[in-house]
Amino acid sequence: MSDRIYRVDMSNLSFEIEDVPEAWQGLGGRGLTSTIVAEEVNPECHPLGPRNKLVFAPGMLSGTGATDSGRCSCGAKSPLTGGIKESNAGGTSAAILARLGVKALIIEGLPEDDSTFYHLHVTRENVEITRVPELVGKNNFEVLDIMAEKVGNKAAVMTIGRAGEMKMLVANISVRDPNGKLRSHGRGGLGAVMGAKKVKCITVEAGPDDEVSISDPGKLKAANKKFMHAILAHPVAGEGLKAFGTAILVNILSEAGGLPTRNFRSGECDFAEQISGERMARLITEREGDTAHGCHRGCVIRCSQTYNDEDGKYVTSGFEYETIWSLGAHMGISDLDMIARIDNVMDDLGVDSIETGITLGLAVDAGILDYGDGEAALRIIQDDLANGTPLGRIIGGGVGNLGRLYGLVRVPVVKNQGITAYEPRAVKGQGITFATNPMGADHTAGYAVATNILGVGGHLDPLGKEGQIELSRNLQISTAAIDSTGMCIFVAFPILDDPECMPALIDMINARFGIELDFSNVMELGKRILRTEREFNLRAGLNSAHDRLPEFMTYETLPPHDVVWDFTPEEIDGFWDF
Amino acid sequence: MSDRIYRVDMSNLSFEIEDVPEAWQGLGGRGLTSTIVAEEVNPECHPLGPRNKLVFAPGMLSGTGATDSGRCSCGAKSPLTGGIKESNAGGTSAAILARLGVKALIIEGLPEDDSTFYHLHVTRENVEITRVPELVGKNNFEVLDIMAEKVGNKAAVMTIGRAGEMKMLVANISVRDPNGKLRSHGRGGLGAVMGAKKVKCITVEAGPDDEVSISDPGKLKAANKKFMHAILAHPVAGEGLKAFGTAILVNILSEAGGLPTRNFRSGECDFAEQISGERMARLITEREGDTAHGCHRGCVIRCSQTYNDEDGKYVTSGFEYETIWSLGAHMGISDLDMIARIDNVMDDLGVDSIETGITLGLAVDAGILDYGDGEAALRIIQDDLANGTPLGRIIGGGVGNLGRLYGLVRVPVVKNQGITAYEPRAVKGQGITFATNPMGADHTAGYAVATNILGVGGHLDPLGKEGQIELSRNLQISTAAIDSTGMCIFVAFPILDDPECMPALIDMINARFGIELDFSNVMELGKRILRTEREFNLRAGLNSAHDRLPEFMTYETLPPHDVVWDFTPEEIDGFWDF
Repeated sequence: MSDRIYRVDMSNLSFEIEDVPEAWQGLGGRGLTSTIVAEEVNPECHPLGPRNKLVFAPGMLSGTGATDSGRCSCGAKSPLTGGIKESNAGGTSAAILARLGVKALIIEGLPEDDSTFYHLHVTRENVEITRVPELVGKNNFEVLDIMAEKVGNKAAVMTIGRAGEMKMLVANISVRDPNGKLRSHGRGGLGAVMGAKKVKCITVEAGPDDEVSISDPGKLKAANKKFMHAILAHPVAGEGLKAFGTAILVNILSEAGGLPTRNFRSGECDFAEQISGERMARLITEREGDTAHGCHRGCVIRCSQTYNDEDGKYVTSGFEYETIWSLGAHMGISDLDMIARIDNVMDDLGVDSIETGITLGLAVDAGILDYGDGEAALRIIQDDLANGTPLGRIIGGGVGNLGRLYGLVRVPVVKNQGITAYEPRAVKGQGITFATNPMGADHTAGYAVATNILGVGGHLDPLGKEGQIELSRNLQISTAAIDSTGMCIFVAFPILDDPECMPALIDMINARFGIELDFSNVMELGKRILRTEREFNLRAGLNSAHDRLPEFMTYETLPPHDVVWDFTPEEIDGFWDF
Repeated sequence: MSDRIYRVDMSNLSFEIEDVPEAWQGLGGRGLTSTIVAEEVNPECHPLGPRNKLVFAPGMLSGTGATDSGRCSCGAKSPLTGGIKESNAGGTSAAILARLGVKALIIEGLPEDDSTFYHLHVTRENVEITRVPELVGKNNFEVLDIMAEKVGNKAAVMTIGRAGEMKMLVANISVRDPNGKLRSHGRGGLGAVMGAKKVKCITVEAGPDDEVSISDPGKLKAANKKFMHAILAHPVAGEGLKAFGTAILVNILSEAGGLPTRNFRSGECDFAEQISGERMARLITEREGDTAHGCHRGCVIRCSQTYNDEDGKYVTSGFEYETIWSLGAHMGISDLDMIARIDNVMDDLGVDSIETGITLGLAVDAGILDYGDGEAALRIIQDDLANGTPLGRIIGGGVGNLGRLYGLVRVPVVKNQGITAYEPRAVKGQGITFATNPMGADHTAGYAVATNILGVGGHLDPLGKEGQIELSRNLQISTAAIDSTGMCIFVAFPILDDPECMPALIDMINARFGIELDFSNVMELGKRILRTEREFNLRAGLNSAHDRLPEFMTYETLPPHDVVWDFTPEEIDGFWDF
């Protein structure tokens, strides 16, 4: 049975199931969410008003058994950046949506009765829309428990916590993962869009016979074997991430002088070792946690983990480098246990741990708390943010708003979204990605760290300008394509280093749909997605002046390399010459 | 002696006095501040960083004895809008700067030692720059008293209160008026720019022999006689404003259905009479205040007043319609005495009473206080804003930021600046001005209320679209020119109705400089200023998508006329076809 579009109209609490328009046939994941948002959402609309739409789309290969294909994209006009947004997450939603034949789930309109929240339950040919006043004010873990009782623990769950209900700009959308924990559509305030639509949670349930139709299963299986082999043979994707998680990057970046420390005042952190992936792995092992599991079924990279406290009690999982960086090097907390506790509370409330952590670090410059004061940070999240006090609203407004309210100049944002764990002055290719990507500062959008720092895909001097724009451009184009497949971004590592990997991925796409794409088709797709997103942004009011890093990086030298951000506006704008 | 440019560099606490470049010769007021900002400030710079500049320029006719010519312009890149900003104020600064031959005072850079604030004392050929730790944390009225002792009460004073020190986006720059009270460069957060530069106050002192050089004094005097006659003979400029102040508009707008009430939910206010200019005038008379005085020497319109409390004790002056509207109709306070008390506290702290009042009204939608709760509003200003508590920072961040932090959709801003006391849906020409003017929503920038509501310059149906773009365009062009002369905006009323008025104004300019401008030259000047400002904004990242009214006005009908904002984006963009 063909895939179809499930469309929910919250203004009259109805749904339609539609055939997939011709132009959307070859799309999935980010390619599809961005295309739908660009076609159907007025770029000038208010992101929390009735004319924005929230779109979920599994990747092209999600649900097929292709290794690492379980990422689901979520898109909308972002209330944080004011531009187009796609944020993808692991968990179980991509595979289940794909198995149901849901090419995309589009949620539009605002309910007339906004006195409560709603639960959407998606099954084959149906979307049940129910008022759930009993869920209002509940946070994510409790919602998961309630949903497990209500619809069983095999259904996918997407939910917002109190932050999303309050339409905070740091609110994310959380997704149940195979271990019953949480993954997140973290960035860009998509949880606020869901909250504005008064959707508290979405569950998706497939039956045992619901399977993705594959045009040539044998070909897919064969290609997947090669693909998986390429991943497993790669030193980063197949080994490093599994051993130490993404936090493997803490020591690497600090040694490279590219770990933004104390609000981007240095590129090296004196307590990097204490918050490093190596130390985390030791603690996890000592405490009988789990150093390596996947965020979705079929993942062989397994960069996730279960982090326990000293008593061996679960604290958090999916404990990522960027979160550890933001609360650690950036806001000065050297106690990994404290960072883990805060991470857990943030997951429960449903806030982007990256944006929130960067905001807390910037709050030191605002005089709100001191560097390293984890108790204060925890209190602000648990008491203020959770209850929407004025201070909680300020932190929940994200980095850019905090900077505006306190008259700060050293505010690490691009397009109002916080810059993550890679110092642009010292990892210049990544700086180009932060500056130019339509999503705002987003480390995943074109991970030049690979070639600048990790020696993946060759090596390019991270401190020099030479070749960085081309590097970022190629990565952003290929990432836009990969984000459409449902693949984890880390498959980019073997793709960059192993010439067999990309052809295997393309073979899988062709086998799935019975088509004949080649490499250039895939790159064209990536280009088309980027251009579509850029065009939306221009019409939304984000022009070249928004493709800029914070001005202070142009005149303030960063230790230890004493470098500044030295790309001219004209050079940056040249990024779009493709 | 020729006029010259006084340039202060805060980065090394030095100054230079420069000849006026050829291209700036014919300029003054807004024409000059906008030209200097556009030429010297990188549109992409951080408004509170080292690369922004704060420019003061008296009007072309300031200090000459020309009626109503005492407005001083202040310009910079605005931290509130992110675009170019000019805000002009009465007081004594324009005339004294002009008499000293200060064509413009440019303040640039940030001091290396930012541990304290500085006082700039401008005299002929000199700028004294002094550390003033004793003034830190003081508010405006106390600063005026201290300055009166320090430099005498004939010097002009420009000062920031605690809000400016804290770089709040609602911070204004206050100016001493002839009665020792305050006028304000109110809008756009210019006080935050002054605060960022660590300038607490500026005093300007002229000697008895310092006089503006006039090329043909006899011609100026003769033209001024005609000009003054035209003002005095005009029913609004010569009579209405003097009798009832600008608050004369309360009843007029409410009756026209154009008085935004309870955050733009209606165009008529049930308690308009209680906050009307008529009632204010009665109270002032009963309490032996002063119903009519000028904000600067030489004003014959005299729309200002001194408002006393029930015991005949001074409460506030310069008690404007827009302030009364924002705290009154918009946030529901029907007690004029309470509004006056809040106005006085806002003046003292140095906040734009318009932006702050609109923010307080919107705060009702955020659940922060209730409609009509003046005590709560007063407490928030006096306790929270003055002390920079989190709630104070939120209110001090202005309308747009409050909306973002609380996930609100009905947020009355254009370019992040609050929409003032005229409902765009019911006064459509004014809506075009709000949408398109480079300053953001600014009622003075092209006062279409005149022709839409007051019958000045003819009459145009305020509810229809016909002719509104042309009306707003013509008014914005002429206003840009008038803002360059140092004239009060209300001279536009006789200019629109009396064919002798504009020629008299042009004669005065020609007599001052010994030149031969005609009407078309003046209109060309206005066009050039607008285009310069627009071009700056485009480069700063404000494109056509920012020339829009809030989206909710396009789908929410406004009582009592049940109208929506129905201009298409294309129609609005046509504004710039000149």
